Amino acid sequence: MPDTQHSNQTQTTAELLATLGGAARRAARAVAAADSGQKNSALLAIAGQLQTHRAAILAANAEDMANGRAKQLEAALLDRLELDDSRIDAMIEGLEQVAALPDPVGAITDLHYRPSGIQLGKMRVPLGVIGIIYESRPNVTIDAASLCLKSGNAAILRGGSEAIHSNRAIAVAIGEGLKAAGLPTSAVQVVETTDRDAVAAMIAMPEFIDVIVPRGGKGLIERIANDARVPVIKHLDGNCHVYIDDQADLNMAYDIAINAKTHRYGVCNAMESLLVASAVAEKILPRLAGGYANHGVELRGCEKTCSIIDALPATHSDWSEEYLAPILAIKIVANIDEAIGHISQFSSGHTEAIVTENYARARQFMAEVDSSSVMVNASTRFADGFEYGLGAEIGISTDKIHARGPVGLEGLTSQKWIVLGSGQVRS
Amino acid sequence: MPDTQHSNQTQTTAELLATLGGAARRAARAVAAADSGQKNSALLAIAGQLQTHRAAILAANAEDMANGRAKQLEAALLDRLELDDSRIDAMIEGLEQVAALPDPVGAITDLHYRPSGIQLGKMRVPLGVIGIIYESRPNVTIDAASLCLKSGNAAILRGGSEAIHSNRAIAVAIGEGLKAAGLPTSAVQVVETTDRDAVAAMIAMPEFIDVIVPRGGKGLIERIANDARVPVIKHLDGNCHVYIDDQADLNMAYDIAINAKTHRYGVCNAMESLLVASAVAEKILPRLAGGYANHGVELRGCEKTCSIIDALPATHSDWSEEYLAPILAIKIVANIDEAIGHISQFSSGHTEAIVTENYARARQFMAEVDSSSVMVNASTRFADGFEYGLGAEIGISTDKIHARGPVGLEGLTSQKWIVLGSGQVRS
Repeated sequence: MPDTQHSNQTQTTAELLATLGGAARRAARAVAAADSGQKNSALLAIAGQLQTHRAAILAANAEDMANGRAKQLEAALLDRLELDDSRIDAMIEGLEQVAALPDPVGAITDLHYRPSGIQLGKMRVPLGVIGIIYESRPNVTIDAASLCLKSGNAAILRGGSEAIHSNRAIAVAIGEGLKAAGLPTSAVQVVETTDRDAVAAMIAMPEFIDVIVPRGGKGLIERIANDARVPVIKHLDGNCHVYIDDQADLNMAYDIAINAKTHRYGVCNAMESLLVASAVAEKILPRLAGGYANHGVELRGCEKTCSIIDALPATHSDWSEEYLAPILAIKIVANIDEAIGHISQFSSGHTEAIVTENYARARQFMAEVDSSSVMVNASTRFADGFEYGLGAEIGISTDKIHARGPVGLEGLTSQKWIVLGSGQVRS
Repeated sequence: MPDTQHSNQTQTTAELLATLGGAARRAARAVAAADSGQKNSALLAIAGQLQTHRAAILAANAEDMANGRAKQLEAALLDRLELDDSRIDAMIEGLEQVAALPDPVGAITDLHYRPSGIQLGKMRVPLGVIGIIYESRPNVTIDAASLCLKSGNAAILRGGSEAIHSNRAIAVAIGEGLKAAGLPTSAVQVVETTDRDAVAAMIAMPEFIDVIVPRGGKGLIERIANDARVPVIKHLDGNCHVYIDDQADLNMAYDIAINAKTHRYGVCNAMESLLVASAVAEKILPRLAGGYANHGVELRGCEKTCSIIDALPATHSDWSEEYLAPILAIKIVANIDEAIGHISQFSSGHTEAIVTENYARARQFMAEVDSSSVMVNASTRFADGFEYGLGAEIGISTDKIHARGPVGLEGLTSQKWIVLGSGQVRS
């Protein structure tokens, strides 16, 4: 009997998701057709409703926090789960910021005449229905909803089960805001079941969902990418490199290498491996070692590195590691070719930087390094939607197709071809 | 025992594909780094080698044809399989045309300064390794190889088993051409086994292949899309619509409706369903019925259509059908909203056209119809890589992400972010 019961539950969850999917598909047409003014009123109305429902949201969050503590969730997870007035203020501010961004939808580019007489161009259009699968932070519910709406998409949001009461309360505010702006409430739907099969169902319904954006740990994202039958915009990990060339300005190299590692540790655009041209290793490494020591950064070096500075011996796995911690792997390389070879072998394709004053090497690094952001003489920490002026960020893609690097509103859209004619036919 | 044997074979094929994949991955770096001159010499050298190996290719093809006839393959399939001098000439000409196209790789756009002082832009880059899975036509081997090479990608080509001797012979010419231009021969690899497990292996190795482009029947493409763990640029079907508005120029509407259906029948951008505003149905339909009768097109109409002209009654399934034949479904609709609603329900998202002289309706149709090409007052037959000036076409995508509609060189590339700095760090 348990088997049957399980299969019944599965079916029920899949049916529930199909119902949400069908409603999202219908709502998507209305959101796509909404003009910028209507979408912005919806965003501001949702902000107003967060204000109105503030007490209810905080109460719901308190319930999630109590359950989380009872379940002895980790402190870091509880911190991400917790809402307070300032976090709700930040959600409201985020909605206002997205409302102020330019609307990407409908932009027509490259309109030109073809020899046949047709006028051909591209129009930016929403993708349709976006599925977001995320973990504990309830503010992602508002982030994701606002970016999907502004880019003309409907959204199905599947947050972590530990945040379910918070997400339901936020969903009420979103629904009220949509209604006030005359948009269907099913334009943004929060999956209200905590059944784990809901994720499996979501990633297997290409008829209802056009793209899945998973946000969370690498394990979650890998599982989703492996099983998904819907395209996935995924962010795996950020094993970022800085290469200090032998023609680098060594003061600049010092500043960038310190900043890229120590500005923040738990972020995907932090440097995890430092590559140093052997000709300058003896000059720069002792100074860097001093700087890192002041920040309490543990160094793990190749054999040559360990002969110059005090560092633990790096093992092979260190070159692939995303530490997200005050730890740095250091390798001395012969030249830029060995640096690029190392990056090509070990990088996760997120962000890499070269420090050099040599023109040809700067060009070579830019052309040959295949990562979503490639930098010359700047800290990897700049690889960020806000620093890039996207205004907001749904994630940082380490994929190659569709969107690479920080994904803002444009990454949630596509371009269709438009043809303006005056009766042309093919002959 | 058979089970074990099968599993051993599977492993062998998967291992073979992994070997090809590893070689492609290494070759991809060389192709990506090759400049336009080197890539063009490779294309022209391959053209020269096709000339040199012409007799061998024709002999190999004769073997495939003999096997095909022995297996009693369909006449249409045998026609697609057959090579003759003029088809080899066309392959040579195709290579020369691709060599003459502008190189998309390395183009830097939108370079601008951010408040932090960094200069931010986007650089167009190859995707890496492209896997092409196709059916009987051996000329696709050259088409696909030339587009992948020109866009800086390595390619793994898996043609139909019935064309295996032809493809092997063409692969020899490709290899010689690559060698002559100083590029690794593994930049273009033809899968030389006819084992069906090869496709299953190819679509499950994201570590070696960045995108799969299947070319062939809808069944093949659906199977691949369902099972793939690598992103797929897919072309399912073309159920294209023309909507004749009540404010259409009826002479223009007549020309477009006749051309879109009868110019060629077996193509994905042919009209399959005609929607007519009821206010003009009695005027235009009898004239159209006469025109279609001259072309021998079978008409299947909604109830109202059948009350105006002589047509078979359409069933529900006719609205979804891609006939690829001289058959047309006709439906009378109240207005543009009903037309867009019908398209949104039944279209495959390939190409739709409106015929109207009304400005607001032209804008509404362009904004609200969610297909890869949306046209005003032009025949759907223009939705084509050559008509769009792409110079060549790897396929027509009915997907929404990455590439929509005709996919040329640009669709085989992506954009990475580049940052030019002068020592900037995050504060």
